[in-house]
Amino acid sequence: MIHGGDVLTYKHLYDGEIMDFSSNINPLGYPACLKEAIFSGLDEITRYPDIKYRRLRKNIGEYLGCSPDEVIVGNGAVEIIDGIVSMFNRVVVVVPCFMEYILRPGVLGKEVVKVGLNEDFSINEVALLDVVREGDLILLGNPNNPTGKRIDKDILIRIQKCAEERGAFLLLDEAFYEFCPLDYDSIELFSGSKNVCIIRAATKFFGLPGIRLGYAYADKSIVKSFDQRALPWSINAFADAASNCIFKDKDFIEKSKKYIDEQRRYVTSELKKIKTIRIFETSTNFMLIKLLKGNEDDIFEFMIKRGIMIRKASSFYGLDKSYVRIAIKDGERNKYLVECFKEY
Amino acid sequence: MIHGGDVLTYKHLYDGEIMDFSSNINPLGYPACLKEAIFSGLDEITRYPDIKYRRLRKNIGEYLGCSPDEVIVGNGAVEIIDGIVSMFNRVVVVVPCFMEYILRPGVLGKEVVKVGLNEDFSINEVALLDVVREGDLILLGNPNNPTGKRIDKDILIRIQKCAEERGAFLLLDEAFYEFCPLDYDSIELFSGSKNVCIIRAATKFFGLPGIRLGYAYADKSIVKSFDQRALPWSINAFADAASNCIFKDKDFIEKSKKYIDEQRRYVTSELKKIKTIRIFETSTNFMLIKLLKGNEDDIFEFMIKRGIMIRKASSFYGLDKSYVRIAIKDGERNKYLVECFKEY
Repeated sequence: MIHGGDVLTYKHLYDGEIMDFSSNINPLGYPACLKEAIFSGLDEITRYPDIKYRRLRKNIGEYLGCSPDEVIVGNGAVEIIDGIVSMFNRVVVVVPCFMEYILRPGVLGKEVVKVGLNEDFSINEVALLDVVREGDLILLGNPNNPTGKRIDKDILIRIQKCAEERGAFLLLDEAFYEFCPLDYDSIELFSGSKNVCIIRAATKFFGLPGIRLGYAYADKSIVKSFDQRALPWSINAFADAASNCIFKDKDFIEKSKKYIDEQRRYVTSELKKIKTIRIFETSTNFMLIKLLKGNEDDIFEFMIKRGIMIRKASSFYGLDKSYVRIAIKDGERNKYLVECFKEY
Repeated sequence: MIHGGDVLTYKHLYDGEIMDFSSNINPLGYPACLKEAIFSGLDEITRYPDIKYRRLRKNIGEYLGCSPDEVIVGNGAVEIIDGIVSMFNRVVVVVPCFMEYILRPGVLGKEVVKVGLNEDFSINEVALLDVVREGDLILLGNPNNPTGKRIDKDILIRIQKCAEERGAFLLLDEAFYEFCPLDYDSIELFSGSKNVCIIRAATKFFGLPGIRLGYAYADKSIVKSFDQRALPWSINAFADAASNCIFKDKDFIEKSKKYIDEQRRYVTSELKKIKTIRIFETSTNFMLIKLLKGNEDDIFEFMIKRGIMIRKASSFYGLDKSYVRIAIKDGERNKYLVECFKEY
């Protein structure tokens, strides 16, 4: 199990609908305006998508606070990761991290340098910067997956500066950005920097993993290089149409942020009371948990029998079978999850 | 202009809706059942698509007449081309051909060997087989784009045999297959061969370029290799949902084939009468035309002023400015196109 969300594979183990705590999607679903956008997309699917994605880039640029020609678009965030990785020879990652940071370079025949995180899963700045050299790509999740940790602002600035000095490039995967308390906006922070690309996505926060829409901020020159290598028409007409409305739905955005914040506090405070697990404070809508008794297989089986699918975490490089990851979902389900944890 | 369909770029040149004769989509649109499938897709976009695409492969397998584990799926046919090309070091193509057959190997750092077609754009079997050697990928459009020519069955069988003997691989791009008169089904022909992959797509015949759904038949071992390199979740939830209905719509399929056949005959016979152009007989829903007077720029400008966008063909390797490509569309538009050609 490299990725969460694969409910189908475990369907036979529970008589009823399985609650998917293994993938980290907004529990409030998608913005209500989407349905209409999809109907308008129906008129557009008989044509090829605009090969230059002009409207899409404009909508995203307005949302991110950058110009359309500073926008990279992709068939999900993972296509952007892949495209950027393909431009470099060596990739520096911290572990544990999203497995695609290691898998994609592998597929593309790139060398991967893995740097361990601190014991509390914060970044080990010294160890990281120690290995960075000219031409490297530093690829960091912010917040990181599966740990849920945002990178400290000052540390991030120092990493970017150091990368710049050494002729390295910094790729930040911020697919979970909107779930985090507003500390800093890295696009604002690094606006104008030529050695940074910052990925965001509709997948998680806008509740649309099925629509496949990833996007990123980068300097125009990087956007151009990316586009020269990209497959034509990689974004479907529905994702293109959705961009006309989802980013403007301030209500949905505010409501979701507030809701996740409340639920994160609730789940954190409740799970903290349980003595047989150790939780790691998270900035986002998922949480890494260390089991002090038993292992991921025991608890996975225990939970699936109760209609809950959690994420075993040993498939993340650097974690053993004593870790699992859960998502923060809606109040009722979170309550049920907490109860099951207590029972376990 | 590497690809057709970019109406947006020329929008300002005509006061009204431009008829797009530059891209080759079914003029009857998409199967009526699609709308309902899209609505059901709306329920599915809040989940990740099945990472293994079990339902999708089953639906496609039934349509193609092969088993689900012999099905490759991709974000459009072009993603499958890219994935297969990435497995080989050298790619043999015939020219002119779809430009992505040359561009994608270029992006991936592969050597491309270009073999010229005969004067009537049929395959030069001797010249082609002369260059093929162990480990090569032979990549052929069938029918070829922009020429509209199907490969003769006996020649195709000999190419596949020769490839097999020399340890080369044959990739057939049959994105326009359903538009062609039923001569042979290459999937049936090469069923069981380990050195063949045959691409089909929902893009053209099912009128769905915006939905991004390409698929292919290949031996299980090839499917497995492909999947190991493929990006996760590359097909969106709507394309997945659409597969539940479009392939079963026999009425749409039969009607479209009959309609295109009629319209192809009509356009062919009418354009044949014009002395200043030479047409090349086509098996499919587009046609290559040689201008005996003037060049592609003149006629493009002439046509766009009349609200028609045709495809300049000099961007196809091996063609000069004396060629254009047109699509076969619905009766009324085809009539208008013929009139404009006569006027020109």
